[in-house]
Amino acid sequence: MHRTHTCGELTIKDLGVEVTLSGWVAKSRDLGGMTFIDLRDRYGITQLVFNMDDNEQLCAEGRKLGREFVIKITGKVIERSSKNLKIPTGEIEIKVSKLEILNAAKTVPFLIEDETDGGDDLRMKYRYLDLRRAIVRKNMELRHKMAHETRNYLSNHKFIEVETPVLIKSTPEGARDFVVPSRMNPGEFYALPQSPQTFKQLLMVSGFDRYFQIVKCFRDEDLRADRQPEFTQIDCEMSFVEQEDILNMFEGLFKHLFKSIKGIDIAEVPRMTYADAMKYYGSDKPDIRFDMKFVELNDIVKGKDFKVFDDAELVVGICAKGCAPYTRKQVDELTDFVKKPQIGATGLVYCRYNEDGTIKSSVDKFYLEEELQKWVNAFGAEKGDLILILAGKTDKTRKALNELRLEMGNRLGFRNKDTFAPLWVLDFPLLEFDEESGRWHAMHHPFTSPKPEDIALLETDPGAVRANAYDMVLNGTEIGGGSIRIHNKELQSLMFKHLGFSTEEAHKQFGFLMDAFEFGAPPHGGIAFGFDRLCSLFAGLDTIRDVIAFPKNNSGRDVMIDSPSTIALEQLDELKIKTTV
Amino acid sequence: MHRTHTCGELTIKDLGVEVTLSGWVAKSRDLGGMTFIDLRDRYGITQLVFNMDDNEQLCAEGRKLGREFVIKITGKVIERSSKNLKIPTGEIEIKVSKLEILNAAKTVPFLIEDETDGGDDLRMKYRYLDLRRAIVRKNMELRHKMAHETRNYLSNHKFIEVETPVLIKSTPEGARDFVVPSRMNPGEFYALPQSPQTFKQLLMVSGFDRYFQIVKCFRDEDLRADRQPEFTQIDCEMSFVEQEDILNMFEGLFKHLFKSIKGIDIAEVPRMTYADAMKYYGSDKPDIRFDMKFVELNDIVKGKDFKVFDDAELVVGICAKGCAPYTRKQVDELTDFVKKPQIGATGLVYCRYNEDGTIKSSVDKFYLEEELQKWVNAFGAEKGDLILILAGKTDKTRKALNELRLEMGNRLGFRNKDTFAPLWVLDFPLLEFDEESGRWHAMHHPFTSPKPEDIALLETDPGAVRANAYDMVLNGTEIGGGSIRIHNKELQSLMFKHLGFSTEEAHKQFGFLMDAFEFGAPPHGGIAFGFDRLCSLFAGLDTIRDVIAFPKNNSGRDVMIDSPSTIALEQLDELKIKTTV
Repeated sequence: MHRTHTCGELTIKDLGVEVTLSGWVAKSRDLGGMTFIDLRDRYGITQLVFNMDDNEQLCAEGRKLGREFVIKITGKVIERSSKNLKIPTGEIEIKVSKLEILNAAKTVPFLIEDETDGGDDLRMKYRYLDLRRAIVRKNMELRHKMAHETRNYLSNHKFIEVETPVLIKSTPEGARDFVVPSRMNPGEFYALPQSPQTFKQLLMVSGFDRYFQIVKCFRDEDLRADRQPEFTQIDCEMSFVEQEDILNMFEGLFKHLFKSIKGIDIAEVPRMTYADAMKYYGSDKPDIRFDMKFVELNDIVKGKDFKVFDDAELVVGICAKGCAPYTRKQVDELTDFVKKPQIGATGLVYCRYNEDGTIKSSVDKFYLEEELQKWVNAFGAEKGDLILILAGKTDKTRKALNELRLEMGNRLGFRNKDTFAPLWVLDFPLLEFDEESGRWHAMHHPFTSPKPEDIALLETDPGAVRANAYDMVLNGTEIGGGSIRIHNKELQSLMFKHLGFSTEEAHKQFGFLMDAFEFGAPPHGGIAFGFDRLCSLFAGLDTIRDVIAFPKNNSGRDVMIDSPSTIALEQLDELKIKTTV
Repeated sequence: MHRTHTCGELTIKDLGVEVTLSGWVAKSRDLGGMTFIDLRDRYGITQLVFNMDDNEQLCAEGRKLGREFVIKITGKVIERSSKNLKIPTGEIEIKVSKLEILNAAKTVPFLIEDETDGGDDLRMKYRYLDLRRAIVRKNMELRHKMAHETRNYLSNHKFIEVETPVLIKSTPEGARDFVVPSRMNPGEFYALPQSPQTFKQLLMVSGFDRYFQIVKCFRDEDLRADRQPEFTQIDCEMSFVEQEDILNMFEGLFKHLFKSIKGIDIAEVPRMTYADAMKYYGSDKPDIRFDMKFVELNDIVKGKDFKVFDDAELVVGICAKGCAPYTRKQVDELTDFVKKPQIGATGLVYCRYNEDGTIKSSVDKFYLEEELQKWVNAFGAEKGDLILILAGKTDKTRKALNELRLEMGNRLGFRNKDTFAPLWVLDFPLLEFDEESGRWHAMHHPFTSPKPEDIALLETDPGAVRANAYDMVLNGTEIGGGSIRIHNKELQSLMFKHLGFSTEEAHKQFGFLMDAFEFGAPPHGGIAFGFDRLCSLFAGLDTIRDVIAFPKNNSGRDVMIDSPSTIALEQLDELKIKTTV
């Protein structure tokens, strides 16, 4: 037997018990005639002690153990003289009477500790050692719990998990599909799914009523923005539902996850329209951990000969609580920040509402203090606050102010990773105009239903048509989204017409789903959550890579196994393909 | 709102309640001035009633509803005059006051009923309609429950589910790998995993201690034998364990599944060595729902001038209880059966132990009744039994007798799908000789550990070396298998030597796993279950296709979505590949 206990469970209650433990040598130190070893496994660390006076040979063997050696020991649980109350096993140690080396270890390339000396590249190459660090392993444990509790909640709500195929069909627009040559069908290819969208809708046609799947999806695209070529979704679909049913069901999932994983009671998730999100936060995924809403100033700033404001489509600002004392340098930093090319503002106007009641702005030459008082009123600013204003084209200015707002949130410590502020964003536009093709595109996908009251606008003002589409946002990150689908044939045809598809094109691209819809499709809708992202937010991490056991790098490479790689010519021949590099 | 209740929940307790239901029109019949409709959803069937006298227009609309129309109705729960006590909702019906057609349906290509008129091909083409049949959907519900209970059990036993990558690396021996060209790394390919074997072993090196995953695996091979190019495994690995720990843990999983899914208490799973399985059942996966063990007769049949037996390496038989009255024709059928080319016996000797105490055999000319009495004694046969004997080369004869035994099991009704007889088969040979390459091959894989007491035999009698390898067998089907792995470098080198690998070859093929083993690998072992097969056995089905929502056919094609398919030239160009068909 390799162990009677794990390294995480022995406490003062076990004094005197003879135990066998197995694990890794985490640390070792000699102190006078004694040698102390931290023995580590997944469950914790237990201190071992060897004593020269008791057993010289054994102690000598103990001294020779290297870091990360795998050993098995037998010994008695005794009370420690110097206790470590930070860990559950910290009051005891094991007086070793028997030692067996199960496996030796070469010197590891970096420290197996929470604070390691290994750089990113090295840790990825030796990911199996990186995963040995408690801080990394805990992320995987969290991920496991998240998946398990998601399944519990959904199963308890009558959802069935159905595995949809991984080897599917490439669609004409599947530019980002990974494809897989078929040996049995030479010249033909499968594709890996970017999502199980079609299959989950088919399952609704099948009457499955409530479907979910925690499922790998694949996208062959640029990976700059913390993306992975393979990623995991919580994919869900329900029949005979309206938007409200979906929002309630998945708000419930969310509350369950917060409660069961983090012990946090989440209040009702607030809801915001897409239009309001853009107007008040300049983003379709507002971080509402803090307020600092946009205030539009067109009505009160125009016509005072300040050309920048007079020419602007939108003048809009935020109020930074308590920042009036910002130094010139600090304000300049903010100006530099908004002028960065990726943010693109041309300048920043500020207005201090000083503690002494005076109001000073960077545009004092155009605005009298009584006019500035109107600004202060518009923001509901208090003494000590700093107002920051941008002006220009509406979309661009909102986007820039969103960045500035987030930056101020960071500076003011409002974006704490232990604070969680979920939000539903509703009523997304159904269509967006694609400048390149000069056509309207479905913002989600062509089966997303428009709001009934907006259908008439399809003819007159397509951009104003709102969809029954919703996103779940957490701390400024989109973590899920979905829609109520069109199940009605006439409406679907109308949609295809407005998307510029002929019946033939529509059928070529969505053929079997459209066929299926002819045989009695129920009203249905669904949602999909980015599981990697959700886990990283729960874990308070910045990148999804940290919640993926074996992630790929920005070039889509797994540097540990050195993949992708060339394959043998015989293999290519058998598949009836050739590379043309 | 689309419904207040599902079609499976209203009973006599709900009399008088006004309800709204949605679902599919399963059946419709007019009876005098009344129209009755079976409304179906996933949860059941509720009868609707329309009455000409009450509301002529509504009833007329009801009469026009076609099969599989999706409708929403409102009405009152009333007591049925003619009750159907076979279903929970059979005592009530809904007197419809409001009807809305949510979606019409074309005529479906086959009946959506348990007994359908649709052939296999048609049902696969319209799989989404096939899945609408309760009998098919129930298989998916079972599969969901099996996965969920598996996860519950393993999570409760400290296993962590870790997602391993789907885009991995093709190995030099990955002849059956599916490969995936990488757009970002032109000329290079990922491979889809045939199993996560390497990754789960790496996770043990990482100290994960107990890993599992319900995971899709992929194999590009001939699909004749009820296989699928993508299939699902319950993949597990544990550290600091011996074989006994693994057997106990997964016997526990098995018991939990039987109890929670089928309400069956499974007794301790019996164990059998591979050697005994071959000797007594002629198979490494004996069906032990019935006894009928092989009895070897060499000692008592030889030397009586019956050349067939005298020349045979092995004379071996089974005793079919109560079959002595078999007619000549029935015995001839059995003879024809064993002579089929795929079974390959040259003939069948029988011996009847008649009810009147006489013994008659097909070889009476060589054996006196007192000699035949010895046969009877060897089998422990009783009056009325029929003994069936084959002779020839040991392996071939055992294999043929295994087939005959299973055939007799079928004829005697011993192979009931509702009876479950699991079995551990232990002590598999470590190596098997490959005639083609003239080399010994690892029967499982090269990391499988030999029994310590057999290691010396590696030099002298490699075929006799037993492995710490085990299979779980259920009703004559292998449903899982695994082994204790080698974690010791010297032993691993010895193994590679005996498998004819140079150090370089071994490193090329298993490089990063061997590297990983140098940094402190714990003793570990694991098992993997074929989840599709397991589900099909639980469901009492003959093929794994029936427990897969969207299976592929024998040519690896999904006929519903028509995949695989050709892809656009531009797509091939971007991937820097060409087809050579």
